[in-house]
Formats: sequence, C-alpha cells, structure tokens
Amino acid sequence: MHLSRHGHDVVGVDNLIRRRWDRECGTQSLIPIQTMPRRVALWHSVSGRTIAWRRMDLCDTAAVNQLVFDVQPDAVIHFAEQRSAPFSMIDLPHASMTQTNNLVGTLNLLFALRDHAPKAHLIKLGTMGEYGTPNIDIEEGFITITHNGRQDRLPFPMQPGSFYHLSKLHDSHNIQFACRIWGLRATDLHQGVVYGSRTDEVAMHPGLATRFDFDAIWGTVLNRFCVQAAVGKPLTVYGKGGQTRGFLDIRDTVACVRLALDHPADIGEYRVFNQFTEQFSVKALADKVREARATHGLPTSIVHLQNPRVEREEHYYNAKHQKLLDLGLQPHYLGDTLIESVIETVEAHAHRVDPVELQQPNVDWRRGGTAGWGTPAAPDALRAVVLVSPDGKRRRPAPRRSRSRVAQTR
Amino acid sequence: MHLSRHGHDVVGVDNLIRRRWDRECGTQSLIPIQTMPRRVALWHSVSGRTIAWRRMDLCDTAAVNQLVFDVQPDAVIHFAEQRSAPFSMIDLPHASMTQTNNLVGTLNLLFALRDHAPKAHLIKLGTMGEYGTPNIDIEEGFITITHNGRQDRLPFPMQPGSFYHLSKLHDSHNIQFACRIWGLRATDLHQGVVYGSRTDEVAMHPGLATRFDFDAIWGTVLNRFCVQAAVGKPLTVYGKGGQTRGFLDIRDTVACVRLALDHPADIGEYRVFNQFTEQFSVKALADKVREARATHGLPTSIVHLQNPRVEREEHYYNAKHQKLLDLGLQPHYLGDTLIESVIETVEAHAHRVDPVELQQPNVDWRRGGTAGWGTPAAPDALRAVVLVSPDGKRRRPAPRRSRSRVAQTR
Repeated sequence: MHLSRHGHDVVGVDNLIRRRWDRECGTQSLIPIQTMPRRVALWHSVSGRTIAWRRMDLCDTAAVNQLVFDVQPDAVIHFAEQRSAPFSMIDLPHASMTQTNNLVGTLNLLFALRDHAPKAHLIKLGTMGEYGTPNIDIEEGFITITHNGRQDRLPFPMQPGSFYHLSKLHDSHNIQFACRIWGLRATDLHQGVVYGSRTDEVAMHPGLATRFDFDAIWGTVLNRFCVQAAVGKPLTVYGKGGQTRGFLDIRDTVACVRLALDHPADIGEYRVFNQFTEQFSVKALADKVREARATHGLPTSIVHLQNPRVEREEHYYNAKHQKLLDLGLQPHYLGDTLIESVIETVEAHAHRVDPVELQQPNVDWRRGGTAGWGTPAAPDALRAVVLVSPDGKRRRPAPRRSRSRVAQTR
Repeated sequence: MHLSRHGHDVVGVDNLIRRRWDRECGTQSLIPIQTMPRRVALWHSVSGRTIAWRRMDLCDTAAVNQLVFDVQPDAVIHFAEQRSAPFSMIDLPHASMTQTNNLVGTLNLLFALRDHAPKAHLIKLGTMGEYGTPNIDIEEGFITITHNGRQDRLPFPMQPGSFYHLSKLHDSHNIQFACRIWGLRATDLHQGVVYGSRTDEVAMHPGLATRFDFDAIWGTVLNRFCVQAAVGKPLTVYGKGGQTRGFLDIRDTVACVRLALDHPADIGEYRVFNQFTEQFSVKALADKVREARATHGLPTSIVHLQNPRVEREEHYYNAKHQKLLDLGLQPHYLGDTLIESVIETVEAHAHRVDPVELQQPNVDWRRGGTAGWGTPAAPDALRAVVLVSPDGKRRRPAPRRSRSRVAQTR
C-alpha cells in the first residue's frame, strides 16, 4: 500500500500460509485482519490505486517463473519466508521446513530473475539476527580485514541464533553468489525488531489493518510488552534482559523499502543495509513501557523468566546503520507517545487477548517443543516422524549398546 | 575399510544414489565397482573384519533417527551429500536438490544426535571451496579480527563458488549452531581436491576398488589430466589455469578421517581442519603431468579452453593446513611416481574411456546446462518445470511489458 500510494504499480503474491500457521499454533492477530481480496478492494476504494494480487507459493517453481516472465518487474520485494525464530525451533520438521521453504523460494526467484528479468532489483528481507552478537562493531554486510600484512573486503562473519536466522544467512550467501555469477542486483535488508502496526496507509481505513502479533511464537518483544501492560499483567523479560538488539518503527520499515527501491543496487552488486534506527536492551524496553504507564499513574511490574533461548544476556553490541540514513531515512524514534498509542490500540482489542496465549512460554532452544501448550502438528510438507509424546516431552529411549560403534555414511 | 582395518566397528549406510546420477549424466567410473553387498563380503573374506551395511537415505528422518538410536555410535562420519559443483550448476532443479538434499540430511543427523547420542563425535566432510579465494591468508575455520579497537575470534568469512559449495557452507553454519546450543561435538573437514584412488585397503583386492571419475561432472582435475594423458589427448585447462587450490592424495583423506576420529572435538566444540597437503595451480598440475610423461619420452600437449566457471584465474592463495599435521598426519606429496601410477591404473582400463565423455565440456556457470551433451532429466525429488529446449539452450521468451512493474511478495 505504501509503494502503491507513492506511484508504483504493485503486483502482490502471497500463499497466505501464515493464517494456517496461526491455526496450527493456536495464535491470532490481536487486530482482526480482512481477507486479501477485501483489502485489495478496500485499498482501491480508499486510494483510487489498484494492486494486482494473486495467491501463489514462492516454492512453486513454475508459478514463480511465469510471474516474473509475465510481470517483467523493475524490482522484486521478497518478504515471502517463514519468519519466526521460535517456530523454527519447535522440532526437526519445523527447522527443516523453515530452511527448505526459505531457500527453495529464494532460489526459484533467483533463477526466474536470471532468465526473465536480469536487471530487476531484488530487495530481500534479511535480519540483523544473521550477525549474532560479536565482540566487535557490526558493519553493514562487509568488513575490511587486515591479516598477516594483507587486506581484503570480505563478508562480515555471521553467527545466527536459530534455524530461522540461519535460513536467512543461507539466503544471503545464495543471493550474493547469484549477483556475482549472473550479474543480478540485490539489496539485503538486515532488519531489526519491528514495533507498532500502523503505517500511514494502514491508518486510512480500519479494514486495511495489518496483523499485530503478541504471542511467544510470532510476536515481537515491544508489542508483547504493550499487550501485557494493557491487560495489567507483568512484563516478562527472559533472563536478565541484557540482550541488546536493533529496533525500528513499522513506519520506518516501509520507508526503508521505498528508499532501497528508489536507489537500486548496481548491476552485479549485492549490498546490505542494516535496517534499524535504535539499539535497546530488552530490559531497557521493559523499563520504557513501565515509565510510559507510570506517567498515567498506572503501575506495571516486570518479572524475569528463565531464558528459553540460548543467547548471551550480557554482551557488546554496536551495529552500524548509516546507509539508509544517507539515503534520506527520517527515523521515528521510540518515545512515550508511540508506546501509549500502541497500548491504546491494544486496549481497543483487549477482549481478543487470550490469557493462555499471552502466558504461553516460548519454545525452548535446547529441548524444542512448546511446553505446556500442546504439540503442534508436523507441517504438511514433511513426512518426518517426530518422537514427541502427547505431553510435549521428547520420549528418550534408554540407550542400549551394540557392538557397532561407528556409523559411517557416505 | 580403513577404519575397520584399524579396529573400529563400522556401520555403513548409503542410498547409492551416485549410481543413479551416473545413469542420468551418462558417466561412469573408469574402474568398474562392485555392488556394496559384494564389497562388504569381499572385505570380510580379505580382512576377517565385518562392516555392517544397510541401504538408507539420510533424508529419511525416521530411518536416521532409528539408526542413531540402534547403533549408539561413538562417532558419525558424514560423507552423504551431493558432492559435485558442476552437477549443482546444471539448472534450478539440480541447484535446489543439492541444497535441500545436503541440508535436510545433515539436519536429520543433528537432531538424531541431540536426541539419542549427544556425545557422539560428528565428523563432517566440508570443502576448502567454502572459503573461495580471499586476498588474505585462509585460516582453519576461524580468524581473530581486530576492528575499531576491539577483538573477537569469529568464523572465517566465506565466499563459495557454486550452489554445491554453498550447501556445504550452509551445513557448516547449521552444525556450528547445533554444537553451540545443544553441546554437540563436531569436526568439519574442509577438504581440498582429492587425487588417486588406491588406499592400502583398496589395494588388497581388485574387487574392493572405489570409483575413479574423470568426466567433467564428477571427475577431479588431476585424475582427469591423467586419463587425458593415458589416451594421448591434450590436457584441457580452463582459462589461464592460474586457479590455485589445495590438493591431497586419497591415502591422506582416509588418514585424516582417522586422525579426527582418534582425537575428537570437545563437548560443545565445533572445529574446522583444512584437509589438504599441498597447493597447486591448475596449470602447474598440467605441467607436472606433462613432465612425468616426458621422462618416458611421451609428449603431451596442453590446451586452454574458455573457462565455463565464474572464478578468478589469477589470485592470492595461502591456506593454512597445520592442525592435521599437528595430530600426526604424514603426507603423501604429489610426485612423478604417483602420477605414473595413476596413469598406469588408467591404462589398464583405457578401453572404458568413452571419448565423448572425456571431451564433454563442463557445465556453464552462467547459463547452466550441459552444452553439446543433451539435457539431463530433472531429479525425481522435484516437480519443477524447467524451461529448457531440446538443444540445451534456454528458451528466452521475448520480454513484454505490463503496466505492473513491482512484484511484491510477502
């Protein structure tokens, strides 16, 4: 809608699988969302602009090939991936599906671009989570390394923290390779954690609302804190809350995509923009929400839960994010007003907050599963057998020794 | 056989798909190879040792789970991947199959180890090709980087040169992550280009021979030169032949695996050994073969073909390979004797050299396909539609413009 309003002719494709995953996980968007045909029709009536939409799976090679051939796009904006770290950590089928879904979709797109639109600019949603938390400054995609008296500009060393984040890193390497050998052009947007849900376009009509997730699988941390505050529950911080990440307002997300679109990469260029505007620790975010509430005389408590993820809770973090500013990004920094506005949005839909969903613990990085909350079905795409018992715990059979000790596969 | 002879109880699993890929590509091993049951029986009669073998696909999640549970291995040696760069570059189905096959098999193994044998030592065959050709010295997996006054030991920046090499890099990242979050232990053997075909064990009986590939899809460069020399054809060098890589004798390959096995990684450790013994440029290898022949009065010519790959032909290359030497590796360096012995082996089977197969050009990195040599069928695993005409060229439809210009996928 943002690009459409700014004069671009937009073709949107989506397989709508996120709605099926919501049914699998027992989760839902806090703000109800309309069907895609309704939103497209509504957008036309509100803006006078037409978005061509079709249901399509990016893993359908023939469909992607046909799409790129038919549309002859000047640019492709690729957000079509499984995008939840906890979802990818549930079990092997979810890990495997996340990586194959994301890789195969992106490979389909790269080959279709090579064959039918080699000059189109691929704008791909990556993640700041590809970097992990190195003990040096994080650059934007590449770093100049001097070593034993020689120097080179090389891809920044990456240490992703989930099978989802790993899938994004695999994509980044595949895209970079395609740019090098086929002369494609790509921008990899290494996005931070997004908060908020209202862009200027979404605000034009309630029926244009986009999803607002607050559960432990799909929700991002600040949205989750705002929901907890709105319904008078404690804010739940994992561990000490010292985990520092880059954050940005959803209005800046759409602005960044448009900036990348209006300033394309060169032919053969693979470039990375770190797409966030501010760094916060999780604890600092919780404090901000508490303070915003306190100005209205509303007390909010913070509780620390055992961290279900495997991550450093105290670490150095200083990530560069200059390139989008240089292109003209005008950041919306996080302030009390935004927090209050998110909480007001939440309050309008507070009757839809399911307390079970809100308190559901996160997927455990070590054991997987969704403890205390049933076991999700294995994705259709995989015929894997999962050794999970109905109570959600892994059935670990007693080990027994055979005389054969080395399993060699070749 | 090498590990079995040295006292290890070995369980071997293999889906034998390499033989099917040979039928697809019209290629064959120069040295005939026996069926696996015959080789296992022969090994028992020759050595008195038993190898338990079963046909199994590493992408079969349930089978892998059961295998690791049943065997309770002390170590798993994982060679079970699609391992040809040209094969992965034929077209989208081959690229996609290579990456999904290699990733899914390795993920299956990692989860099975987590659940049933978390202390087992995973020894995984990686490749020196993960590094690419950076303008700095290549370290063994990790590099200490000083940047803006701070320092960290980080994964070495990687720039793989084919969808196959990329699949190995994706594996490396997944394995490293599994070691970090689950405390698994792994050694990633970043192997160079292997030459030769006779280990001490293979030499014990002709029926134990392993494959010897010389075609442009599966063959490695020195083996290919030896075949060309043996049948009196010119040695074919791609471009200037300045591409420098690490090489090793197949006897050192099995020695390195045993060294890694006998000196396992620590619990939670992911380590990388660069597994090669010498560096050569492709042109220097061709000269070595020519010189070895010249000492017998046999003239050999060298021709330079247009390089079908996208790679630097002149570059800095200095890769460390100290860790396996520190563990006691006694390298077999490449000498005239080895080259002569390989050529003698080839001569014994020269009647099996198919001139068409020998002269078949390599897969083109830019256009894919196997020019002049028909179009291989798409792998069973993929239902992709491939737009390739019978003459092996891509059918590129005339572009047409629609008014929709931006394809947005989300």
